[in-house]
Amino acid sequence: MSIAATRKSDEVGRKLTALYAPIAADLVEAEKVFNAELASRYPFVQTLVDHCADFRGKRLRPALVFLTARASGEVKPDHAVLAAVVEMIHTATLVHDDILDESMIRRHAATVNAEWGNEAAVLMGDYLFTHAFHLAASLETTLACRWIGHATNLVCEGEMQQVSNRGNFDLDEESYFSIIRGKTAELTAVSCRLGAHYAGAPQATVRSMEEYGRDLGVAFQIADDVLDLWGEERATGKSLGTDLEKQKLTLPLIRLLETSDPETAASLRNLLAEAKPEDRPRVRDLLDQSEALQYAWGQAEHYAEKAAAALDVLPDSPSKSVLRTLTRYVVHRSH
Amino acid sequence: MSIAATRKSDEVGRKLTALYAPIAADLVEAEKVFNAELASRYPFVQTLVDHCADFRGKRLRPALVFLTARASGEVKPDHAVLAAVVEMIHTATLVHDDILDESMIRRHAATVNAEWGNEAAVLMGDYLFTHAFHLAASLETTLACRWIGHATNLVCEGEMQQVSNRGNFDLDEESYFSIIRGKTAELTAVSCRLGAHYAGAPQATVRSMEEYGRDLGVAFQIADDVLDLWGEERATGKSLGTDLEKQKLTLPLIRLLETSDPETAASLRNLLAEAKPEDRPRVRDLLDQSEALQYAWGQAEHYAEKAAAALDVLPDSPSKSVLRTLTRYVVHRSH
Repeated sequence: MSIAATRKSDEVGRKLTALYAPIAADLVEAEKVFNAELASRYPFVQTLVDHCADFRGKRLRPALVFLTARASGEVKPDHAVLAAVVEMIHTATLVHDDILDESMIRRHAATVNAEWGNEAAVLMGDYLFTHAFHLAASLETTLACRWIGHATNLVCEGEMQQVSNRGNFDLDEESYFSIIRGKTAELTAVSCRLGAHYAGAPQATVRSMEEYGRDLGVAFQIADDVLDLWGEERATGKSLGTDLEKQKLTLPLIRLLETSDPETAASLRNLLAEAKPEDRPRVRDLLDQSEALQYAWGQAEHYAEKAAAALDVLPDSPSKSVLRTLTRYVVHRSH
Repeated sequence: MSIAATRKSDEVGRKLTALYAPIAADLVEAEKVFNAELASRYPFVQTLVDHCADFRGKRLRPALVFLTARASGEVKPDHAVLAAVVEMIHTATLVHDDILDESMIRRHAATVNAEWGNEAAVLMGDYLFTHAFHLAASLETTLACRWIGHATNLVCEGEMQQVSNRGNFDLDEESYFSIIRGKTAELTAVSCRLGAHYAGAPQATVRSMEEYGRDLGVAFQIADDVLDLWGEERATGKSLGTDLEKQKLTLPLIRLLETSDPETAASLRNLLAEAKPEDRPRVRDLLDQSEALQYAWGQAEHYAEKAAAALDVLPDSPSKSVLRTLTRYVVHRSH
């Protein structure tokens, strides 16, 4: 890990720590629940658990649970459990995603698959999933289990749709949005829904918070996909260009294909189908000469604004203001 | 798939269908719940769901739910849900196990990883896990979610212990039993515990049923491990010798190493460490010249008998008699 990367990472950490000030103590509680649930008497398992803790950089989903709770009602002990649950599920999907993407770096640390092999990574993801559900079942009713179960079903479907569309260079925008709504936005949506519901917010507010979370997730994923094409590994802390390598069509390229003349589109499809690393600059050039990146950023902005608008139902509060800042952060973060 | 394999498979199917006669209608109900829960509007997902249905040959865990229920109380609509849940979790572990083992065949069909790649297999396993928990959460209380969550936590730990002991040729019996109690026996134990509890059986009976399920699972796994060393692919319907190939020490080899003279043990450790397919006959010879296979069968018999003894709390009934037959079946099955 380079010094520049460390500094960048520290900077993002500091920024988020400052942003999360209204829920700092809440996040500490969630962290305790998270660690207690995952603790294992087997040293190998504990090593993997400790390692995965390093992936949990942004803590976006637990933050959403607490922020929506504080902004719409009262934080209760159940919220720490819910926050730990959604973070566990998110971490599980990261660990499994890294296998799918054959990624080697995640938040400046080696991925589980890179360090201990795919087998350990498959099982570690499973361990995180089953503990998440076990923990959710410690609540009084089945409600959280049902909502989280439903959301994770849709997360998996989104991911499977994505895999089945590898190498499909005719993927359209509608299918792209359907994929990212499943794989990313369901979990941010349910985090907000749970946060507000368990805080005792009225049903209409719970629905608005869910919409906020969904649109925030969509904005976040579009930005993430743009950064994968256009970011720097140093700054993002993960392997980049994996979408191109894996022939995964994301919004900028879908737009570029849709708006190019037939000849350029055909030549781009060839480049994408061959997926040679040395062709990446050529793909970048085509993107640069088009408005496709701007279009994708515009879509990210659009969903971020929709998310911000969903906050209008809330009275002013420090947590509401953080929720609003997050809508800008997910689009404008440099990682 | 060879004709001999088909015949063998049909024969096993017929035998089990006859055995499950007292719960035939129950299993049909569970099947309906299973299919309804997993149905997907995405053709790719549905194809994988349909494919995995072919793996569910023995239906041992759903059968245990219903048999313990009928033998100890009354079958209720919840039982079909519970049976579908445990079968989903079992199927999830099979799909993920096949990635770990790089297996190509499962119940005479291609594994998900062989047919659609590791990515699809990782996600399909996740899909089965999350749907299992979602389905469990449709019950009135969190009890099933808690019990199933706890059991699957231990299943994952057992699997991880196993992976961390790959290539450890000093693995002792105690650790072996700890691994198989986790990875196999927890799920059969919880199937029986749930079956009896939801049938309204008294607590002592529920505990006995759990013990039955645990011992049955241990017996089953020992037999499975012996067959992996000593069976025929044609008859078992899965890739064999994978334990040797994966340097996974199982009971017969642990026993052989413990009872061999130091020289033989050292030469065996070398053979195991190199894991060449052409050395397999040599390993088989060493096993044949020892009492290690008999010892392992003896242990399987011992646990099967313990399981049978746990049934003494039950009044006589057709279902009790099937539970008793299963203790013999898991050891003496030819697959």
